Amino acid sequence: MHNIMKIGIDILGIDNPERIINFVNNYKDSEVELYVYGLEETLIKITKTENIVKNVCTEEVYMSDDSARVHRKKKDSSMIRMLDDLKNQIIDVAITGGSTGAFMASSVFMIGRIEGISKPGLASLLPTRSDHKFLLTDLGANVEAKPDDLLNYAKLGQLYMKYIYNIETPSVALLNVGVEESKGNKVYKDAHKLMKAEVANFKGNIEGREILEHQFDIVVAEGFAGNVLLKTIEGVAKSLGKMIKGIFLQNLKTKIGALLVKKGINAFRKKFDYSEYGGAFLLGIKKPTIKVHGAADENALYYAVQQAKQIHKTKLYDIMIETMEKGE
Amino acid sequence: MHNIMKIGIDILGIDNPERIINFVNNYKDSEVELYVYGLEETLIKITKTENIVKNVCTEEVYMSDDSARVHRKKKDSSMIRMLDDLKNQIIDVAITGGSTGAFMASSVFMIGRIEGISKPGLASLLPTRSDHKFLLTDLGANVEAKPDDLLNYAKLGQLYMKYIYNIETPSVALLNVGVEESKGNKVYKDAHKLMKAEVANFKGNIEGREILEHQFDIVVAEGFAGNVLLKTIEGVAKSLGKMIKGIFLQNLKTKIGALLVKKGINAFRKKFDYSEYGGAFLLGIKKPTIKVHGAADENALYYAVQQAKQIHKTKLYDIMIETMEKGE
Repeated sequence: MHNIMKIGIDILGIDNPERIINFVNNYKDSEVELYVYGLEETLIKITKTENIVKNVCTEEVYMSDDSARVHRKKKDSSMIRMLDDLKNQIIDVAITGGSTGAFMASSVFMIGRIEGISKPGLASLLPTRSDHKFLLTDLGANVEAKPDDLLNYAKLGQLYMKYIYNIETPSVALLNVGVEESKGNKVYKDAHKLMKAEVANFKGNIEGREILEHQFDIVVAEGFAGNVLLKTIEGVAKSLGKMIKGIFLQNLKTKIGALLVKKGINAFRKKFDYSEYGGAFLLGIKKPTIKVHGAADENALYYAVQQAKQIHKTKLYDIMIETMEKGE
Repeated sequence: MHNIMKIGIDILGIDNPERIINFVNNYKDSEVELYVYGLEETLIKITKTENIVKNVCTEEVYMSDDSARVHRKKKDSSMIRMLDDLKNQIIDVAITGGSTGAFMASSVFMIGRIEGISKPGLASLLPTRSDHKFLLTDLGANVEAKPDDLLNYAKLGQLYMKYIYNIETPSVALLNVGVEESKGNKVYKDAHKLMKAEVANFKGNIEGREILEHQFDIVVAEGFAGNVLLKTIEGVAKSLGKMIKGIFLQNLKTKIGALLVKKGINAFRKKFDYSEYGGAFLLGIKKPTIKVHGAADENALYYAVQQAKQIHKTKLYDIMIETMEKGE
């Protein structure tokens, strides 16, 4: 049992804790020991007995908490207890569904940044119209990014895509307001120059217009624009989905029409259900922390745990530390 | 014939000039005299004889031209000749389908900024899932915006929505990475404070997630994020449209399904065909210039001319100048 992985799950913060409990109780994996963190009333419902460690906490992190202070003010919360165990090498990877702000700030404060990284960036895998998926970063962790930050997100993103998805030299594009090199504000123009000089397989700029059509492995964005991009994709997909549903429900004729295309529409929905892509994670900190959606279900948790396993097995974060410290 | 409006149309820059020619030849409106600007070979095809003034130009503005120099380097191009006539009060409003960069730079250089405006912003009307439409600004004219710029876009946008759409006190929201007041970078935080203090009916922040669901009259964004938002809405709507089409064309069963919902799908498409909303325009210059899409058709041109008429009739730009100069 020496090589067993220890994966932490903060079971507060998920909208429906029953889903985590179901997932934990049914998860069978001899390679993994699950460390669960939560209030006693929830942990008591966990009936799994093998490969499980329950950590009873007395506090909970709320969305309304000041993100930057949670790690000092709520030391016995499930999120902070878990991150503390990660810091002290009791667990290998930490997964939470709690407040993104608290997750990001506490991860940075408690786990620490890789040398050379001034502000870590949030990253997540996203779908395109084809089967191709890409890593988008930064999703909003750093809304005052400097060109060096964007360069580092490109480099760290490449390591993620190389080690987790076996892409030898992942391609990188920069989100911008036009495809020409001279586009954007000063931060973007300087970032473009840096990436052109230092990032292997840098493909230049990409516009929001092409975001579901391209074949790049990584799209780098400044945090504000990256956040707008992410939320607009989600928002537009959701709104259009509602419009299509409205069209289908109009009358008997359209309802029959809907039945005839049901299979395709379900596949379409599945594509924009990101849960199979794992959670979001911070690029630039020393140990892996994963943020799943507050609305995460058993499926989303399953994939987050698989992602955690991959990250741990490939020693990705050690490689990130080494690479950045060598200044490559 | 004293009160006839003179509306300029730059007939180069539109992907399909036949469409402009068709539009011009068939446009009957005793209130409007059309001033058309183009190469002789195109103007010769215009057979309309009443209320038309043809301006034969010898140069054309290309996408590849340096936007900031076009007004000096291509003085006999259709775009610059038209803007020169606008400046000299020969025409009242100028409409072009040419390069957005050249359009913006030349409009600012040749027409001039309203006192108190340091960098004009680009604005356009956009649809939501309901019948509600909203003005989005800045769409990318100013990618180094200061808080004051955003405040001015809010104020000028309110005048546009008040005088063109008869909304007494148009509501304003700020595009941001979260709804809380403290969200965003320094520019956004400061802009939020300014707008809260100075903009009547300011509603706070909006996220990309809600962009097709809200009921605000104006959404103000910093130019970079506004451009990403606009292009992502267009891009995602287009990509999802292709996916739906793919689902419908899969087999005989789905093709029958498609026929049954055809009417609703066409209405859906029409909503995301922005041509009926008029063109984009610059907020913060002294006279009205309108930019239609390069892919504009007769319909889009018709609505741009109606928009130009409304702007002229309401004396909107004079009101904007007065309001800003009074510092209101």
